[in-house]
Amino acid sequence: MDFLPSPKSQELLGRLQSFFDQHIYPNEQEYARQLHASENRFAAVPLMDELKEKAKAAGLWNLFVPPSHAEYCGEYADHGGLSFSDYAPLAEVMGRVQWSPEVFNCNAPDTGNMEVFMNFGTEAQKAQWLTPLLNGEIRSSYAMTEPQVASSDATNIELRIEREGDEWVLNGRKWFITGAMYERTKIFIVMGKTDPNNPNRHEQQTQVLVPKDTAGLSIIRPLTTLGYDDAPIGHAELVFDNVRVPVENVLLGEGRGFEIAQSRLGPGRMHHCMRLIGAAQRALELACKRAVARTTFGRPLSKHQSVREDISKSFSEVEMARLLVLKTCDKIDREGVQASIDMIAATKTTVPLLVQNLIDRCMQLHGAGGLTEDYFMAEAFNYARWCRQADGPDQVHQMALGKKIIDRYSA
Amino acid sequence: MDFLPSPKSQELLGRLQSFFDQHIYPNEQEYARQLHASENRFAAVPLMDELKEKAKAAGLWNLFVPPSHAEYCGEYADHGGLSFSDYAPLAEVMGRVQWSPEVFNCNAPDTGNMEVFMNFGTEAQKAQWLTPLLNGEIRSSYAMTEPQVASSDATNIELRIEREGDEWVLNGRKWFITGAMYERTKIFIVMGKTDPNNPNRHEQQTQVLVPKDTAGLSIIRPLTTLGYDDAPIGHAELVFDNVRVPVENVLLGEGRGFEIAQSRLGPGRMHHCMRLIGAAQRALELACKRAVARTTFGRPLSKHQSVREDISKSFSEVEMARLLVLKTCDKIDREGVQASIDMIAATKTTVPLLVQNLIDRCMQLHGAGGLTEDYFMAEAFNYARWCRQADGPDQVHQMALGKKIIDRYSA
Amino acid sequence: MDFLPSPKSQELLGRLQSFFDQHIYPNEQEYARQLHASENRFAAVPLMDELKEKAKAAGLWNLFVPPSHAEYCGEYADHGGLSFSDYAPLAEVMGRVQWSPEVFNCNAPDTGNMEVFMNFGTEAQKAQWLTPLLNGEIRSSYAMTEPQVASSDATNIELRIEREGDEWVLNGRKWFITGAMYERTKIFIVMGKTDPNNPNRHEQQTQVLVPKDTAGLSIIRPLTTLGYDDAPIGHAELVFDNVRVPVENVLLGEGRGFEIAQSRLGPGRMHHCMRLIGAAQRALELACKRAVARTTFGRPLSKHQSVREDISKSFSEVEMARLLVLKTCDKIDREGVQASIDMIAATKTTVPLLVQNLIDRCMQLHGAGGLTEDYFMAEAFNYARWCRQADGPDQVHQMALGKKIIDRYSA
Amino acid sequence: MDFLPSPKSQELLGRLQSFFDQHIYPNEQEYARQLHASENRFAAVPLMDELKEKAKAAGLWNLFVPPSHAEYCGEYADHGGLSFSDYAPLAEVMGRVQWSPEVFNCNAPDTGNMEVFMNFGTEAQKAQWLTPLLNGEIRSSYAMTEPQVASSDATNIELRIEREGDEWVLNGRKWFITGAMYERTKIFIVMGKTDPNNPNRHEQQTQVLVPKDTAGLSIIRPLTTLGYDDAPIGHAELVFDNVRVPVENVLLGEGRGFEIAQSRLGPGRMHHCMRLIGAAQRALELACKRAVARTTFGRPLSKHQSVREDISKSFSEVEMARLLVLKTCDKIDREGVQASIDMIAATKTTVPLLVQNLIDRCMQLHGAGGLTEDYFMAEAFNYARWCRQADGPDQVHQMALGKKIIDRYSA
Repeated sequence: MDFLPSPKSQELLGRLQSFFDQHIYPNEQEYARQLHASENRFAAVPLMDELKEKAKAAGLWNLFVPPSHAEYCGEYADHGGLSFSDYAPLAEVMGRVQWSPEVFNCNAPDTGNMEVFMNFGTEAQKAQWLTPLLNGEIRSSYAMTEPQVASSDATNIELRIEREGDEWVLNGRKWFITGAMYERTKIFIVMGKTDPNNPNRHEQQTQVLVPKDTAGLSIIRPLTTLGYDDAPIGHAELVFDNVRVPVENVLLGEGRGFEIAQSRLGPGRMHHCMRLIGAAQRALELACKRAVARTTFGRPLSKHQSVREDISKSFSEVEMARLLVLKTCDKIDREGVQASIDMIAATKTTVPLLVQNLIDRCMQLHGAGGLTEDYFMAEAFNYARWCRQADGPDQVHQMALGKKIIDRYSA
Repeated sequence: MDFLPSPKSQELLGRLQSFFDQHIYPNEQEYARQLHASENRFAAVPLMDELKEKAKAAGLWNLFVPPSHAEYCGEYADHGGLSFSDYAPLAEVMGRVQWSPEVFNCNAPDTGNMEVFMNFGTEAQKAQWLTPLLNGEIRSSYAMTEPQVASSDATNIELRIEREGDEWVLNGRKWFITGAMYERTKIFIVMGKTDPNNPNRHEQQTQVLVPKDTAGLSIIRPLTTLGYDDAPIGHAELVFDNVRVPVENVLLGEGRGFEIAQSRLGPGRMHHCMRLIGAAQRALELACKRAVARTTFGRPLSKHQSVREDISKSFSEVEMARLLVLKTCDKIDREGVQASIDMIAATKTTVPLLVQNLIDRCMQLHGAGGLTEDYFMAEAFNYARWCRQADGPDQVHQMALGKKIIDRYSA
Repeated sequence: MDFLPSPKSQELLGRLQSFFDQHIYPNEQEYARQLHASENRFAAVPLMDELKEKAKAAGLWNLFVPPSHAEYCGEYADHGGLSFSDYAPLAEVMGRVQWSPEVFNCNAPDTGNMEVFMNFGTEAQKAQWLTPLLNGEIRSSYAMTEPQVASSDATNIELRIEREGDEWVLNGRKWFITGAMYERTKIFIVMGKTDPNNPNRHEQQTQVLVPKDTAGLSIIRPLTTLGYDDAPIGHAELVFDNVRVPVENVLLGEGRGFEIAQSRLGPGRMHHCMRLIGAAQRALELACKRAVARTTFGRPLSKHQSVREDISKSFSEVEMARLLVLKTCDKIDREGVQASIDMIAATKTTVPLLVQNLIDRCMQLHGAGGLTEDYFMAEAFNYARWCRQADGPDQVHQMALGKKIIDRYSA
Repeated sequence: MDFLPSPKSQELLGRLQSFFDQHIYPNEQEYARQLHASENRFAAVPLMDELKEKAKAAGLWNLFVPPSHAEYCGEYADHGGLSFSDYAPLAEVMGRVQWSPEVFNCNAPDTGNMEVFMNFGTEAQKAQWLTPLLNGEIRSSYAMTEPQVASSDATNIELRIEREGDEWVLNGRKWFITGAMYERTKIFIVMGKTDPNNPNRHEQQTQVLVPKDTAGLSIIRPLTTLGYDDAPIGHAELVFDNVRVPVENVLLGEGRGFEIAQSRLGPGRMHHCMRLIGAAQRALELACKRAVARTTFGRPLSKHQSVREDISKSFSEVEMARLLVLKTCDKIDREGVQASIDMIAATKTTVPLLVQNLIDRCMQLHGAGGLTEDYFMAEAFNYARWCRQADGPDQVHQMALGKKIIDRYSA
């Protein structure tokens, strides 16, 4: 056994940490200032573009690209692609500042969408959409969740996609479409049903590409979670009203939408969990700093036994959560995503809840201020809470994992 | 033993519930619309004024006034003042819609401030501030918490109040001053130190009245908690820079600020808890409705054993929390606030956390939508979380309560 | 509202507390000594008989008898029967010493069995069994749970009862039959199926009386829970091998066993919960005493913030649990057991778990000694844990309660 | 990173699992039978001796010996000593059957005592005590904990050791002395104070060897935890009344007792945690088997969503706990015990509590039977609960760990 990151991962980790020390942490207040000052909450933040250039110059770009797709790393990245295990410590660092993944072209949902293009796109689709995405020039959305059905079971999706001549015609409603509000976002990957009566429930779905400016596509409103709009990326509610795109906008093929969805979601869940480890670690560190800085009833918080117990517990929890992420990454790297579905589910249903509770504890040590934007904790709390619903409520994954484990041990 | 509300409380409860059915629930969307449409987030919402007139007409006004101060109920209220036990079921109903207490002139921090005026104000102070407050014409703030010290221990307060001739001169910083953002707010009760070197740590503090438009008083920014700004009432950060008010603006007397603070906070904590019971109850009811309306994997949520366990647990918890509130009210009514400090602390440190967790559970049953503004739960979650810090972090009250109980049983 | 016990209950409570101070607490070590010294763990403890005489003399006898059955109180009890609300504070005191309820003829399962006789027994059955039970001369068991089926659903019961001429013939297996080991126990109420194919699943069951010494009835072994055998009363596994009793030993009538079971179990669950409140309260008091008596790292435990938080939390929890019990009692007293099935389920699924966790916390403050027989906590912990299974696992009751609440609020 | 056991560990693991399949699991009932049948609960169980011979024959002996002490493995073990990482998976398997570690000469407290002899014993001491211990011929105890002081702080120890001529004279009281009841136990390592007034609090203590049959040493009573006496090894209370041993019975030297204690306890805590992982894993497996075997309300437990959530959660937790143990082992192997004190504390304060709760959940799925001796769970629950106190209450370790982490991150 061996708990050390690979030399490659360590080298990049060092470079990334330096980048954070020089360019990210010192700019947290400025980023917030620019965002608040903007008339359009979903406009690009000027600072972001500056930082992206710096990240490219530092070779910290497209770190999410797996070795099997190394050809897509692009000119700004000489790393040759990173395994899940190699990427995890880097994504953890990015989780320390919520808006930072975009700096490195590593933010959701673009990373997942880029992988979809790498895996299933035609050359024309790649040229039009993947290349600018890899360069960070445009952003994208993945439109799957619908308000009126339990979308965690993808077979429930109701948005209708019908073939009319050389076009697909889309009608339906989506929500929680991350990135759809962002002005940089240009292309939506939309999941719908082309064959709702197909007796094989996994062949009813198709995914098609819908440019954001297509007629009939309306962005109804931004959605908030616990009061956050996650600007400028945001989450939107969309209506598709006779939206028409050419037949060649299909991804992979008619009736293969479920297959794409399956391949996409596992890695996305892991990326969220990797980042949440970083959020938890930072909350713990803030709590330690607070414990020595704050005095109540004549003693610094750090000398209260209850505070020590909180810190001790949080340290232990973040270690366990991190190890669970890493073991799952290791399994994916060795055996692939499908064979690791058990560990992915264990991670997805454990880490967000654990991190939510850990941050809650660390916030409480900060008094009323802990709930404000003066610290990153409240926003990170919201991220963790949201991840208990994102990519399906935890309960759905526990249903599947529980069944699998019962089968395994009762055999 | 007897768990029924008094006839008087029951009668008012029926009237209040009718009012909610007719005027509050049907206006929830409109209130949100008006608030979002307003250019100034902290302007009065037009709907609020309409509803206040209806509440006055219905005799549902100033319900928080205790029988001992019945003379202040005013012309719109013939109830003669309500005991804590009588008020609790009414405040519970108000907790079902976060902005509704103001409709009945029962919102924090105005209720607490009005009680301060009733208890300690001079006739002139009452005429100038209490009367318009009781009429719902103006609003008020209570400025105690400071960012740089643990304000839950009121002896830590640092804002300086110095006598210069016929004036008090205030210098210092406050934050989390609820209501200070609101355009209707006209008067601040400010706690500071007039005699910081007094060997009696409870005689260093004084409270003075500072009109909002006094020179030198700056409202720096609105504060958010978990992303919410609680508009239009809001929480603000304030700077006092040589703020001057006449000597007669002192409340009760120099050096008696701690005494006022002590008297004010117990009831405020109870009012929060009463309302949180209503928030929890409504979350539970929403979860039940959701459970029958939503189907996943071929069964309505209501048939999943895990959902039934969640509902069962939530029902039991809200019952227990309500009973704890009611027993504490009963003790206050019989023995007074000071003698009930143990039960108030037990309530304050139990109910918000319990309600936070209960709402979290109910939100989870609602999928991603549960975190949005489409339901009241996310905002109520924030309220519960915030109450674990408001009026002092739970831990401070547990310290005092734990000590008291240890003394009681180890004697 | 009013949280005071009735004068009658208060008077008896005072008398009972005096009895504990004079006769129970001072004899705890002696009781343990006599039990350990006995060659037969399930023999009557001599001290018990002495104390029962004292209890009779003090009029503290058959306190469980409800007012509707006042005629059964007997010569040693002038109280005229106690409502649930009146009995709860008394049972709470009995819960402070695990073996004490028998002193007052108030121990499970005899109280429930006596109620069955009062409600459903013939005059002959009452004369033979109820009278000596009411006098504390014999003990009884209630044989329902079976090892091979989920007995919490009484329709699963498999023990076969067949009519042959003037006899019932019983074949089957039972376990966790409380009291069956005890040498004083003389009579078993046995639930089985006389008509397993009856389309009405609630008319298949019958209850018959089986004297302990009946041929064919074997007591296989005592059962332990968490290492405790609960001697001398104990829990046993039984085999019925062609056990024959006369037809007149039927209770209420053939096919009416389910009806009896339904009537019996609600009160039993409440009695357990009442006693558990007493166990929790005593654990809290012990923890407070410990906190001042024990010094670690130079400070008494009582000065550690974590200990104060533990005590504060435990105090609040025991208050809430007690209130839940009392409100349920009040509902039963007003509306009857059937109408209170929701509150009984809420109590049964909340109190044992809460008390288990509370005692766990108080044990932890006692170091390794907390887990031993030197304190009553380990045994009380076992009692609380056991009650999460007794009368059906909590989950079964949550299923029913959850369904009921969903129906109520989704209507 | 790499989560695989070393080839050496894997090979031994395979051998050990076969041994369990052939000799341990099939003998669980027989072991219980022999133990119950024995007149002396603390006599050696005949089956144990048979199994020890088989373990020696299989080369599964003294697996706890570290590579640095390979010379002590003895003739029955050709493994050359095992690192913590290599030993952990083996100890996990042993944790599946509570009495099994002794079969492989790997049980507490003998392993820790043997290490003390290896590290600090004179040649004469080793010849007399270590050799028969390594051969499994005798057993030993480590007498540190005292009833009247918080022994988790070793400087509190009060047992007095005074030099009189060529002898040490011991006076004092100890409790929770594991193994002291066992008839095979022959030697006690006793910690006491030779120099209670030494200003250096860590030089007051000395450890001496006291043969069990020394005059003045009385074994007062066996102690139980949650009703278990842990026979035949057991925990005892001891009185030392002028117990005299020769001066050469000192270990390491006068005033060096604290040093020995420090070196001994870290590994012991890790061994407990390794075994608890096995207990948790087995409880999980039993719960899965139960879930398919048991039907309630017409569905197998395995189809209830709540059961799946329980299983899913338990699987995730046991993974995390195991990973925490393994990472700590890895750190110890690379950097030594002293440098790993943070991770050892994190493990010690996390694993027992997690495992207690996990087993509680799995027991609940087993109905009342889950609490009995019919399953291993109740006893394993007691083991986990006990480990929250063993080697010091969790809170003491959290105090030290919390302080260390605060220092680390607030620097």
